[in-house]
Amino acid sequence: MGPDPAVAAVRLAVREALATLPPGAMVLAACSGGADSLALAGALAFEAPRSGRPAGAVTIDHGLQDGSAERADAVVRLLAGLGLDPVGSIAVTVDGRGGTENAARDARYAALDGAASRLRAAGVLLGHTRDDQAETVLLGLARGSGARSLSGMSPSFTRPAASPAGDGAGVLYCRPLLELGRATVRRACLAMGLEPWDDPHNDDPAYARVRVRHDALPALEEALGPGVAEALARTGRLLRDDADALDDLARRAYADLQVPEAASNASLGDEPEETGEAGEAGEAGRGVGDGARVAIRVDGLGDLPRAVRTRVLRMAAVDAGSPPGTLAAVHVDSVDRLVTAWHGQRHVDLPGGLRAFRRYGKLLIGPV
Amino acid sequence: MGPDPAVAAVRLAVREALATLPPGAMVLAACSGGADSLALAGALAFEAPRSGRPAGAVTIDHGLQDGSAERADAVVRLLAGLGLDPVGSIAVTVDGRGGTENAARDARYAALDGAASRLRAAGVLLGHTRDDQAETVLLGLARGSGARSLSGMSPSFTRPAASPAGDGAGVLYCRPLLELGRATVRRACLAMGLEPWDDPHNDDPAYARVRVRHDALPALEEALGPGVAEALARTGRLLRDDADALDDLARRAYADLQVPEAASNASLGDEPEETGEAGEAGEAGRGVGDGARVAIRVDGLGDLPRAVRTRVLRMAAVDAGSPPGTLAAVHVDSVDRLVTAWHGQRHVDLPGGLRAFRRYGKLLIGPV
Repeated sequence: MGPDPAVAAVRLAVREALATLPPGAMVLAACSGGADSLALAGALAFEAPRSGRPAGAVTIDHGLQDGSAERADAVVRLLAGLGLDPVGSIAVTVDGRGGTENAARDARYAALDGAASRLRAAGVLLGHTRDDQAETVLLGLARGSGARSLSGMSPSFTRPAASPAGDGAGVLYCRPLLELGRATVRRACLAMGLEPWDDPHNDDPAYARVRVRHDALPALEEALGPGVAEALARTGRLLRDDADALDDLARRAYADLQVPEAASNASLGDEPEETGEAGEAGEAGRGVGDGARVAIRVDGLGDLPRAVRTRVLRMAAVDAGSPPGTLAAVHVDSVDRLVTAWHGQRHVDLPGGLRAFRRYGKLLIGPV
Repeated sequence: MGPDPAVAAVRLAVREALATLPPGAMVLAACSGGADSLALAGALAFEAPRSGRPAGAVTIDHGLQDGSAERADAVVRLLAGLGLDPVGSIAVTVDGRGGTENAARDARYAALDGAASRLRAAGVLLGHTRDDQAETVLLGLARGSGARSLSGMSPSFTRPAASPAGDGAGVLYCRPLLELGRATVRRACLAMGLEPWDDPHNDDPAYARVRVRHDALPALEEALGPGVAEALARTGRLLRDDADALDDLARRAYADLQVPEAASNASLGDEPEETGEAGEAGEAGRGVGDGARVAIRVDGLGDLPRAVRTRVLRMAAVDAGSPPGTLAAVHVDSVDRLVTAWHGQRHVDLPGGLRAFRRYGKLLIGPV
């Protein structure tokens, strides 16, 4: 008799992830003690020896709850009992900058980066499931900023090397369980005989993610029928591909269309200087030489599909110094109208004290 | 004192839509008698004479509720009272094929097509709001089939000419209110002194759209904060641009990479025939000459970004006869692995009794 189907599914997912990592090198599981990451650690403990590689695990003590240190010790004992080696807990300090969730995540990743570098690990496995992915996609919806914000978590990503002591190659993170439902993974955890710890934070409605999990997703399932979490996860994956392709096209187009600022000021095109623009041009002229002003050829811009053009305009604005988090679709649309609906309009103000205007066949973005 | 700001906003939206239509020609409003389309009709009655064009309105009697004929007559009187001319109601027969909602929509558009053709109207205005758009995007989420299913309703679209009696140019539909919130549009309706009729169907939880409106969207607002409807509508618009750009790239790539089937059978590449594929090739050979088999060069495919490549593969499968509604992302992914993760695997079965396989450097999709 084979293992429980849920255990088999989690092991298969981990096996496939291990196959993508360099052979023989150490792999770590990041484990909170919750059902998802405990199942991940259990599967890693089973699969790693079979693929001839050492495997360890790390738990992070965020110090945000009473008894978190004892909790971390209990998780370490559980991980050691699985046969993982080395295992350990790292205590981090979470300062509230950017919200507790963000600060806790930053501290956690910094600690994992450090552990991976010290142990020269080929990769760190994370226990996020398809349901986590669905929640992330839905959380991205609130931003309303298109494909990238809806593309959820990547199945794998690299973070820059944590310290000069590392080998400089960065730390590779993988999410083997991203295609598995949380219910399956939890079943696997229990079938492995592991007792998960249910973090009370996972039920605290102060967190947007908890509200999405407990209220919004069930309401969506009720309205749209079963399978919404799968649909959201699938959507995230497809939109990630879309965003990758379009961002890449936009990067190339931006490189092609950009005009060096000196050349942009020197060359006089056949388009007359627009009425009322002298003041703007003069003001913007103050930016010349500070390296922040960006110029792009308008003729090439107009030929691009809108999805690529608006991405180029966003890149140009960010390059000129507009803060990406504040630069909204409505700003980019206004700049786009300088390209596609030109009727002599004046400048467009952009976040970061910038101004976009059109002059001599070029679109210029620079300080006011 | 100017008009109520809500009225001004609706009128401006209608004025901008009229500006995109050929001057002087008749414009029709489609009006259910609900607040949204009544505000639309009121704004059209105000704006059309000021842009020197005749304007009428049509209401559709779907015959789905007791008293619907009287209801339609009351709407016609209201529309005539606005000064629109001609106004009229059209009774349609809704048969339940594909569900009542779909059947009612099909019947409604057919009737509007006919009216627009008979009156040689330049366009038909529809009263969908930003909230309708948000609901449509969310309904598309359940399909989980990527950018296109999340791109909501188009601000304008053309339907083929309804009858040979028409001028053959098709009927243009516009949605001027697609950027306005439902609350604003309703406020405008009331400020215009028009009494809307609230269709009881709009509260019937048998409809997925009603469940989304009354349950899922409020739950999302609760979880993610205010502005979710705007974010969804903005998402839809951005993803529509993305889908347009990527579909266009895929159409070109597909045209470039397709190999005429005769040529595909005649040319023998340097790739050896795969073990176990002889049977498949022989079977698939039965499709030769029936025009359904599609062949694409594998070398060019592998160079495309995944978002474009999977679209090309979907186009090829649909071209070969796979039903678009049944062909899922999981099928396309399996075909993609014949391109990107080739290790001599056998065929991939596709809906519609089709089979994809790789042979002589080509990807072939045809009948089993």
